[in-house]
Amino acid sequence: MPSLLHHPLDPASRIARLMLAEYGVPVDLEEIKPWLREAEFLEVNPAATVPVLIEGDVIVAIGPLASIHAIEDSYSPEAVAGLFPTDAAERAEMWRLFEWVAVKFNDEVTRYFIEEKIAKRDQRGSTPDTGVLRAAKANLHEHILYFNWLAATRRWLGGDTMSLADFALAAHISTLDYLGDIDWGTAADMRDWYSRIKSRPAFRTLLNDRVIALPPQKGYADLDF
Amino acid sequence: MPSLLHHPLDPASRIARLMLAEYGVPVDLEEIKPWLREAEFLEVNPAATVPVLIEGDVIVAIGPLASIHAIEDSYSPEAVAGLFPTDAAERAEMWRLFEWVAVKFNDEVTRYFIEEKIAKRDQRGSTPDTGVLRAAKANLHEHILYFNWLAATRRWLGGDTMSLADFALAAHISTLDYLGDIDWGTAADMRDWYSRIKSRPAFRTLLNDRVIALPPQKGYADLDF
Repeated sequence: MPSLLHHPLDPASRIARLMLAEYGVPVDLEEIKPWLREAEFLEVNPAATVPVLIEGDVIVAIGPLASIHAIEDSYSPEAVAGLFPTDAAERAEMWRLFEWVAVKFNDEVTRYFIEEKIAKRDQRGSTPDTGVLRAAKANLHEHILYFNWLAATRRWLGGDTMSLADFALAAHISTLDYLGDIDWGTAADMRDWYSRIKSRPAFRTLLNDRVIALPPQKGYADLDF
Repeated sequence: MPSLLHHPLDPASRIARLMLAEYGVPVDLEEIKPWLREAEFLEVNPAATVPVLIEGDVIVAIGPLASIHAIEDSYSPEAVAGLFPTDAAERAEMWRLFEWVAVKFNDEVTRYFIEEKIAKRDQRGSTPDTGVLRAAKANLHEHILYFNWLAATRRWLGGDTMSLADFALAAHISTLDYLGDIDWGTAADMRDWYSRIKSRPAFRTLLNDRVIALPPQKGYADLDF
């Protein structure tokens, strides 16, 4: 059984966990707080990012991109469609949207919520910077307008087929939803899309996540939210 | 012949151009200044990133990741090794380092130099923020220590085989070298690696780039720098 160094609310770790669950691969999870930059972890990954995929005592893939590719290469079943579309145009659209989420959305939204609301809990005397959170929330609103438009005009984020782009966005949205930062009232189409993703068996593992002394908002695990 | 919306000093555009040149694919280049966020370009790519790969009147791939994958999928020759290693461990190491360069190095170093030294030239009355440049230069120094160590202990960045990781780093380093921001005196092993990459025929197209009223530092195009 592979194991994964991860953090339960880290979106990149969540993408890897969703992929493994979708492909029916059980995994041993080992929690890391990457922001603590512990010496032992920096030896594994000097970039201090999660996830890291390990099989036996071999480190198979270090960091988000390498892990995603390793999981797709090793575990994507031959018999059914994987999360990387076979059609070239759909695959290009998947990478465009994956990058939107993993780079742009992360850079403008998610990483601020993680830094202020999660990482700072481990810095004694430190409190969330409300100015930063306000700016991140304004950015989030702009992004949700775009995601909601995509959800309104397509079945899945990239088109007719569910792909890694859906898992990437769902991973980020689920972290923000855990923290209570998604205003579902203003995003009906995205809500419908998220409800379909959330109902998949692969999603169950994420919905059971709990971080000590940081409970999820109450609709987090509800399929009817 | 495909065409590429690009900016000559944008590292992600340079990665795509290096790949196309390495695979012997001629390309029509159309210059975009993504920071101007012109309406016509935002219609093509609302994320306002380059490159964008076009064939005929079909937009094939939008943004760095989609373009890289489309070029590898469409143009990588069957007969010789492509830039994505076939060995799983080498491929994982390639993605780890690609992400290091395209996300972490870009985020901590390159984007500041581009914003301050290139994009600001298009904002009337705006001048480079020396405090930002000083911080970026300090970050650059830390990254070069790591790259130099990799170059000292391996033939290519990811191991024995040249890969996309080498092209990604060479693209970023070449932009910074154009701007005169690489101190080669302190990075002998990285210099040796860069000299090998720079001597490849694929690199010639980049060495001929000139941006109006922003000449390259004088060693930029020299193979013996």
